[in-house]
Amino acid sequence: MSSYADRLAALREQLKADRLDGFVVPLTDEHMSEYVGTYAQRLQWLTGFEGSAGSAVVLPQEAAIFVDGRYTLQVRAQVDGEHWSYQSVPETSIAAWLKDHAPQGGRIGYDPWLHSRDWVKRAGAALKDRGAELVAVTRNPIDAVWGDRPAASPARLIVHPDRYAGKSAAEKRTDIADWLADKGADAAVLSALDSIAWAFNVRGQDVARTPVALAFALVHADGTADLFVASEKVDAEVRQHLGNGVRLHERAEFESALAALTGKTVAVDPERAVAAIFEALDQAGAKIIAVRDPTILAKAIKNPVEIAGQQAAQARDGAAISRFLKWVEAEAPGGALDELTASDHLESLRRENAELKDLSFDTISGAGPNGAIVHYRSSEKTNRKLEPGSLYLVDSGGQYVDGTTDITRTVAIGEPSAEMRDRFTRVLKGHIAVATALFPKGTRGTQLDSFARRPLWQAGLDYAHGTGHGVGSFLSVHEGPQRISPAGSAQAGGDEPLAPGMILSNEPGYYKTGAYGIRIENLVLVVEKQVAGAEKEMLGFDTLTFAPIERRLIVKDMLSEEELAWLNAYHAAVVEKIGPSLQGEDRAWLEAACAPL
Amino acid sequence: MSSYADRLAALREQLKADRLDGFVVPLTDEHMSEYVGTYAQRLQWLTGFEGSAGSAVVLPQEAAIFVDGRYTLQVRAQVDGEHWSYQSVPETSIAAWLKDHAPQGGRIGYDPWLHSRDWVKRAGAALKDRGAELVAVTRNPIDAVWGDRPAASPARLIVHPDRYAGKSAAEKRTDIADWLADKGADAAVLSALDSIAWAFNVRGQDVARTPVALAFALVHADGTADLFVASEKVDAEVRQHLGNGVRLHERAEFESALAALTGKTVAVDPERAVAAIFEALDQAGAKIIAVRDPTILAKAIKNPVEIAGQQAAQARDGAAISRFLKWVEAEAPGGALDELTASDHLESLRRENAELKDLSFDTISGAGPNGAIVHYRSSEKTNRKLEPGSLYLVDSGGQYVDGTTDITRTVAIGEPSAEMRDRFTRVLKGHIAVATALFPKGTRGTQLDSFARRPLWQAGLDYAHGTGHGVGSFLSVHEGPQRISPAGSAQAGGDEPLAPGMILSNEPGYYKTGAYGIRIENLVLVVEKQVAGAEKEMLGFDTLTFAPIERRLIVKDMLSEEELAWLNAYHAAVVEKIGPSLQGEDRAWLEAACAPL
Repeated sequence: MSSYADRLAALREQLKADRLDGFVVPLTDEHMSEYVGTYAQRLQWLTGFEGSAGSAVVLPQEAAIFVDGRYTLQVRAQVDGEHWSYQSVPETSIAAWLKDHAPQGGRIGYDPWLHSRDWVKRAGAALKDRGAELVAVTRNPIDAVWGDRPAASPARLIVHPDRYAGKSAAEKRTDIADWLADKGADAAVLSALDSIAWAFNVRGQDVARTPVALAFALVHADGTADLFVASEKVDAEVRQHLGNGVRLHERAEFESALAALTGKTVAVDPERAVAAIFEALDQAGAKIIAVRDPTILAKAIKNPVEIAGQQAAQARDGAAISRFLKWVEAEAPGGALDELTASDHLESLRRENAELKDLSFDTISGAGPNGAIVHYRSSEKTNRKLEPGSLYLVDSGGQYVDGTTDITRTVAIGEPSAEMRDRFTRVLKGHIAVATALFPKGTRGTQLDSFARRPLWQAGLDYAHGTGHGVGSFLSVHEGPQRISPAGSAQAGGDEPLAPGMILSNEPGYYKTGAYGIRIENLVLVVEKQVAGAEKEMLGFDTLTFAPIERRLIVKDMLSEEELAWLNAYHAAVVEKIGPSLQGEDRAWLEAACAPL
Repeated sequence: MSSYADRLAALREQLKADRLDGFVVPLTDEHMSEYVGTYAQRLQWLTGFEGSAGSAVVLPQEAAIFVDGRYTLQVRAQVDGEHWSYQSVPETSIAAWLKDHAPQGGRIGYDPWLHSRDWVKRAGAALKDRGAELVAVTRNPIDAVWGDRPAASPARLIVHPDRYAGKSAAEKRTDIADWLADKGADAAVLSALDSIAWAFNVRGQDVARTPVALAFALVHADGTADLFVASEKVDAEVRQHLGNGVRLHERAEFESALAALTGKTVAVDPERAVAAIFEALDQAGAKIIAVRDPTILAKAIKNPVEIAGQQAAQARDGAAISRFLKWVEAEAPGGALDELTASDHLESLRRENAELKDLSFDTISGAGPNGAIVHYRSSEKTNRKLEPGSLYLVDSGGQYVDGTTDITRTVAIGEPSAEMRDRFTRVLKGHIAVATALFPKGTRGTQLDSFARRPLWQAGLDYAHGTGHGVGSFLSVHEGPQRISPAGSAQAGGDEPLAPGMILSNEPGYYKTGAYGIRIENLVLVVEKQVAGAEKEMLGFDTLTFAPIERRLIVKDMLSEEELAWLNAYHAAVVEKIGPSLQGEDRAWLEAACAPL
């Protein structure tokens, strides 16, 4: 394997050959995915950076890597500071940095299949101020020098049957056709991988932890569709499932299909479709309607079958978590457990379920100070024992055929300190404030975020992440458009009105750097709530996740009567939902862990 | 006085003479003021509409008036439906309406001194879609036909002395000069009337209830300024106060002064400067930096002298309110009071203070169902008696030389119902939740808004206005940029981070149409709060307003221990602050009204 210095030098040579004075390296794929297949891990190949968000710019003499606050430490540990300068976003941006650093009059390359049209406009304008030019490449120069670049995954598509989807793919296409008629459009581009998986009721295995397949699609006003996906991925069963209404093409044919849309009116999502798609449609003389992908809201609002599937998945998942927590309680005080053995054991318990297809993300198994690292991923190098007097935070989830789960529990190993119990109880109060909130229809996620923070704020504390994200149905564990996050925060989605059927996480936390981390996460479902005498149509949450919340970390006197009632009712529900699937000692442990406080 | 039909006909004749196919009539002045002088009340003159926000469009055959939900009923009562169609914003807009109604190829006039540049762009683009054209007029056609149009007020400027301002006008200009240097600009346009009043430490009498004078200003990088104001308004004292650093010009000379800024870099606020100012600078070949007026944040963050002035004004104001509440309690049950006698009496009590210069807005004196009309203004026609078994809501304030006040109290006349007490207690819980909130530096007003609503939401109730607005220092009672309002609401300002020294109202409410209204409003000051063990720099509020909150409307059992403690401590503070200025029965009444619950 070549060194990172060699790779950077090779890229610079290639840029010279391509007559470029620089190149921008984002961390995404042709679908603007949050998580990408290994074939698209160009940033990691070039720099060594393993975080899930970042980007880089390579110039003839300089190279810079851009990460946000979550990765400030990690980037310094993984990326060589001799060859790379570290840049923080949002304090700076690639566009702003290029404005100061690009060679005057230079040509800076970008791959139009890896950037949004808005990014191209902004970066292009910034370079223009510098007298430089942003140039679309036809072949990514990294791919030219990445000798052992993995091929795109050949994994097969899987049918997602109607008994889990709740709505046939044909019906979904009819809905999209109605939507197109309403917009006066002839076709919609679907480019987000989870949109395609949802629309066609298929799942894939091309990206770790997210059951999607690399594909593009065009859905037409007549309810038919073109699906662009490698033919090796489509077996007879999938072909039959897709039916006559779906014409199959190789993924590589997508661009020429766009070029054939001359004179058509085409709906394209500017947040989810890359610049190259807009460019191809412009070239073709198509009329573009820039509008949100029509599957986004429909996918977020789960139907009754998906909700029932989620509940079934949660029952299985909660039982695995409960058995795990019992095991930790029994084994950890003896000093036998570390982060990796613990997360391995949790995975093995989940895998006892035939319905589990994958984890929904790499388990965050954080002992002591590692629990304070919000996006922690344990490795042989960082692995810690679960030691008495510490907290252990475990954030994990499963991809079940009928639902995606995501749960965080924090437990005390041995005797917790008074401060730990105070902090845990404040996080719990915030969690309960969200779980019990009622709010009028039309309320946005941002309007609920502060409920989760107030008990921490009153003690001068806070946490530096959002309170909740959407979750897919055997699909992405981070699914838009809704989100519970502070107004004005960088993460989009908080402005989306919450609607019945949406699933969100409820996960306030508290992190003491170098000491411990606390997070309590359940998934919740937005439902209509009947309130006696209500003058508004009111919504609220039903909690979907059932597993014990560590009683030894709760200061009972800090809870109000209503909060205590919620906790005891929740624990009673845990026993009711999870208990029947546990036997013997596991069952007895659960009942003790859920005893009223 | 001509009929409204005659006026509309006359305007149409004038438009024909001006070769226009239509004209847009906003409700603002050359300073984008919220409240305008009588000379600028063109919408009211043309249509009869007396609300504080609206606009109209006149075409040869059609005319439409646009108001928001607050004025749906009022516009129908005041504006003749035979000649005018009623349009609701934000459901439609002038731009959207013109797109459908403007004559194809027609010329629609607008006065560039009464619209923002953004509005001109949007409306112009909408008309272009229609093949029509938006045309700037050089003389407002309404003024041409408005025979008895009032002249602009000749009222004199008043010096706002440093002992109230806390910072000399020269120092403020130095701050602006530093800001200009930082921006690389030569001059800043000040066009908002309160910005000018603040920057020059002058007050005016040209607009009812808001102590501002009609003027424009240019502040230069050398710390000098040009002030454009009618010379008849400036007496020797003001001239001396302004000093050598301020060159005086007639207001009418402002446009030619802009024309002389050729080659200069000029900072202009696109939210506060009209299109004509941008146009004049463009014509002159000036380089425009579109940026917020540099006085906005400085004005919002009160200095210690302004804070002390506000506290002194509040002590006076609270004493007047307390005497008024005692009087209502004594007189109302006998059936002697109505809305107008009550508000007159309140004004007379306030006017006993020599420091009072004006009310800060027309008193909202709402008995029974009139209390449910959020922007109610009592008149002979709507006047109601304060009747037993009803609630009386009074929202009022004073312009004192040292501070602007704004307070709402709701009291029970006779015996309140259980529902009234439940609702009042929920509003009070929301008020206390804001008053006691702690939050990290950087928190925005929108992040606090839901605290005020939660106790109502839990019963399926809400209120349809923001929770708090900024307040000036002997200046506008509605002052930006900060605001406590729901995320995603139409009112701007909620995204402004709260900063120590800002003053806001805290005014949740509840309104039962046709029955009663409840609002509890105090002003609060953003302050740094020391929290033991805090990891963040924390902010919170100190309440500035001191007057009794109706104890008979509070259901004690609905308050938490902390809420009850806040209420009793607040009432103790009321007695401490207001008590010394009351005598005899007034004092005894206050002590009883503030007794611990």
